[in-house]
Amino acid sequence: MSDSLTHFDADGQAHMVDVGAKAETRRVAVATGRIRMQPATFAMVQSGSAKKGDVLGVARIAAIQAAKRTGELIPLCHPIALTRVAVEFELDAAASTVGCTVTTETVGRTGVEMEALTAASVALLTIYDMCKAVDRGMTVESVHLLEKLGGKSGHWRAG
Amino acid sequence: MSDSLTHFDADGQAHMVDVGAKAETRRVAVATGRIRMQPATFAMVQSGSAKKGDVLGVARIAAIQAAKRTGELIPLCHPIALTRVAVEFELDAAASTVGCTVTTETVGRTGVEMEALTAASVALLTIYDMCKAVDRGMTVESVHLLEKLGGKSGHWRAG
Amino acid sequence: MSDSLTHFDADGQAHMVDVGAKAETRRVAVATGRIRMQPATFAMVQSGSAKKGDVLGVARIAAIQAAKRTGELIPLCHPIALTRVAVEFELDAAASTVGCTVTTETVGRTGVEMEALTAASVALLTIYDMCKAVDRGMTVESVHLLEKLGGKSGHWRAG
Amino acid sequence: MSDSLTHFDADGQAHMVDVGAKAETRRVAVATGRIRMQPATFAMVQSGSAKKGDVLGVARIAAIQAAKRTGELIPLCHPIALTRVAVEFELDAAASTVGCTVTTETVGRTGVEMEALTAASVALLTIYDMCKAVDRGMTVESVHLLEKLGGKSGHWRAG
Amino acid sequence: MSDSLTHFDADGQAHMVDVGAKAETRRVAVATGRIRMQPATFAMVQSGSAKKGDVLGVARIAAIQAAKRTGELIPLCHPIALTRVAVEFELDAAASTVGCTVTTETVGRTGVEMEALTAASVALLTIYDMCKAVDRGMTVESVHLLEKLGGKSGHWRAG
Amino acid sequence: MSDSLTHFDADGQAHMVDVGAKAETRRVAVATGRIRMQPATFAMVQSGSAKKGDVLGVARIAAIQAAKRTGELIPLCHPIALTRVAVEFELDAAASTVGCTVTTETVGRTGVEMEALTAASVALLTIYDMCKAVDRGMTVESVHLLEKLGGKSGHWRAG
Repeated sequence: MSDSLTHFDADGQAHMVDVGAKAETRRVAVATGRIRMQPATFAMVQSGSAKKGDVLGVARIAAIQAAKRTGELIPLCHPIALTRVAVEFELDAAASTVGCTVTTETVGRTGVEMEALTAASVALLTIYDMCKAVDRGMTVESVHLLEKLGGKSGHWRAG
Repeated sequence: MSDSLTHFDADGQAHMVDVGAKAETRRVAVATGRIRMQPATFAMVQSGSAKKGDVLGVARIAAIQAAKRTGELIPLCHPIALTRVAVEFELDAAASTVGCTVTTETVGRTGVEMEALTAASVALLTIYDMCKAVDRGMTVESVHLLEKLGGKSGHWRAG
Repeated sequence: MSDSLTHFDADGQAHMVDVGAKAETRRVAVATGRIRMQPATFAMVQSGSAKKGDVLGVARIAAIQAAKRTGELIPLCHPIALTRVAVEFELDAAASTVGCTVTTETVGRTGVEMEALTAASVALLTIYDMCKAVDRGMTVESVHLLEKLGGKSGHWRAG
Repeated sequence: MSDSLTHFDADGQAHMVDVGAKAETRRVAVATGRIRMQPATFAMVQSGSAKKGDVLGVARIAAIQAAKRTGELIPLCHPIALTRVAVEFELDAAASTVGCTVTTETVGRTGVEMEALTAASVALLTIYDMCKAVDRGMTVESVHLLEKLGGKSGHWRAG
Repeated sequence: MSDSLTHFDADGQAHMVDVGAKAETRRVAVATGRIRMQPATFAMVQSGSAKKGDVLGVARIAAIQAAKRTGELIPLCHPIALTRVAVEFELDAAASTVGCTVTTETVGRTGVEMEALTAASVALLTIYDMCKAVDRGMTVESVHLLEKLGGKSGHWRAG
Repeated sequence: MSDSLTHFDADGQAHMVDVGAKAETRRVAVATGRIRMQPATFAMVQSGSAKKGDVLGVARIAAIQAAKRTGELIPLCHPIALTRVAVEFELDAAASTVGCTVTTETVGRTGVEMEALTAASVALLTIYDMCKAVDRGMTVESVHLLEKLGGKSGHWRAG
């Protein structure tokens, strides 16, 4: 790993770092997070995902669209032509949480971690939005990178 | 509070709910969250915010811009003309976390919670982006609403 | 009705017309359209909307999001803060068509027809996108305004 | 052609399909559609395109810009770096219709049909917008793909 | 006029300033700028605006669309629902310059100077784009505010 | 150099020109411009860039984000995946101007001049926005291309 913040130049000014000399390789990132809610809210989301009021279906689309717009949201991110976005939800009734795991891929010069993290965050915020009328105290927790492949740094996996 | 998901109609279909009959009132929301990192990463962020490599300055701008685009990211959110966005960071050296608290305001027919939550999330993801070359394991934690004023439901504060 | 194109000034130059002096009133528009497909494709969409592969659920979200961005797509449209977007689909097995009807509302100085028409068009294009691997010959048909309320021109209904 | 909806995974969940393994080839798509109007409206458009009040000039720019933003509008579309967009209009005085045909091209891993279809739709909606003050009953008709080249499926032409 | 930078709070941090308490009044701004080019380039633009290759028609649409998106481009700008955008070009053959003057209006809580300035700048950059194959040395000059009405500061006119 | 406007076809209609056959090469552009202000305003910006009220830090981020969105603003620009954006400011106390120089790079089929020019313009407009409460008469001057590398036309430098 680097020992300095690469997004700042020698004078400490922010820039979008030069990746023009990097090789175009297949790059994959997997990020995850969860939202904690009241058991009654959880029950609504769970039943909705099976029949009507499909909270997770809407959150999935929000995640995919957010992944594509990450370069607009995160100032120093490079624009990236994603080749794949997949979104999974994990319902944990005991903990009363909904988890969201996003996999992003590209063939390019820079990694896609931010795309996966942004997509997972927006999915969880979308769940908040749709359930906030019944449970304003929901909390987004533990949004982090699980895994990363491709590029100079190779394979990384959360410890 | 409601006992059903208002973002779905009687047939369970998602819609952007009708707020046309609601009064235009001053509405405020405050949301917060934090990102946990290695102590060495924390030290870089902390020194940067004082002299060069201003991670928090960049994250603040990202948050303000994200607040304005919340209606594009969260599918069932109403577009809102925000009248104020303010972003505060809290550096907790003991815990090695950076907190972000966002206040949003409008004079309108619907609340601005999603704008505050989205802005805080994007600020924390921007910090991740700028520090990821030195610390890939950072985690966004506890993104939640602190307070909400205005509209029919009046004043709400996290318990 | 006017007898000239109001989107062009006296010199024939395009402009975004002045609506500052118009009253803020409740404005509603309803637009519709349909997509014609092979019966086998229709069967996939129909079954999908009931169980898995929810084509219409995705198209509904696309429509709502497109309604909010109409001012970016249609050059001379005013930006509008929509207060409601609702999307209905009509499955016609005999004709092998899926219809889409969108209702948009605002309290503002200008109508919301373009928002309803754009949302319906994007819903139908999204259906095309999701089914194109099985049926490239699908056709979007008869996208038009059904009804319009509010503003100086009052209530209009397709003849 | 495929016999299932590729935009949904084995569990029926929407995803942005993996195109990372596809070859980068030249891809072309041609899509068309038309808008039907009153003869008096048609006369205004026709004269405008020759001298002042250039309805078609504005619609052409709207189409080109919409082509570039297709990935934001159609949820499961891949973002694509278009290498060409061309827009043609066909004035049919006998039928009182304006046709719009859009050609899109890229060198990439996935086709550009949605870009051509979206651009044609937005061009026709832009014509509606500019003429709606004189003719609210205009109808967008027959938006469909004419031709497609490149990629695994080769050359396809509307039958 | 103020004697400090209002876009920064007491701690020197950027924020989107609170305009919630300001009155909704009619606000107008007029901004201008020009682009200097080779006489041969000027002749192409001039002839184009009369017959074919309508450089100014395209630039006008770019300006109108940019005005609507100013809040996305300028970080601390409030999002504004413009009620009018008008764009004029002035051809000065002697100086070999094309001027662009934009008028923006809203009924709102904050001024529309940035919208007028951004629109004028984007119009001039669009002219550059369309003519750069023949004249790479064109220069955008003297982009400034001409006039401003409405709000607490009243009527302001460039001295 | 060309002797005609390539952004218009043989019939004089605007199009996004075909670059599919061009080689993917490294392309660099450098553009610059400046904003002239009152000496008192200049002093505020200068002190701010050193301690608090960091006008230039905000303008730098605005520039980087604008570079990424150039294809949305300039109608006939190709969408481009930038590999680098760097922004420098030059403070000239004698002239009471702030200069901004932007370098953009990509590996692609078309140049990145518009990205550099757009980024510089948005940086200068952002400075205007942040200082307009104290100095409404600031003027953006001399926005032009300094240098361009890559592509068929090779190395170009402002004379």
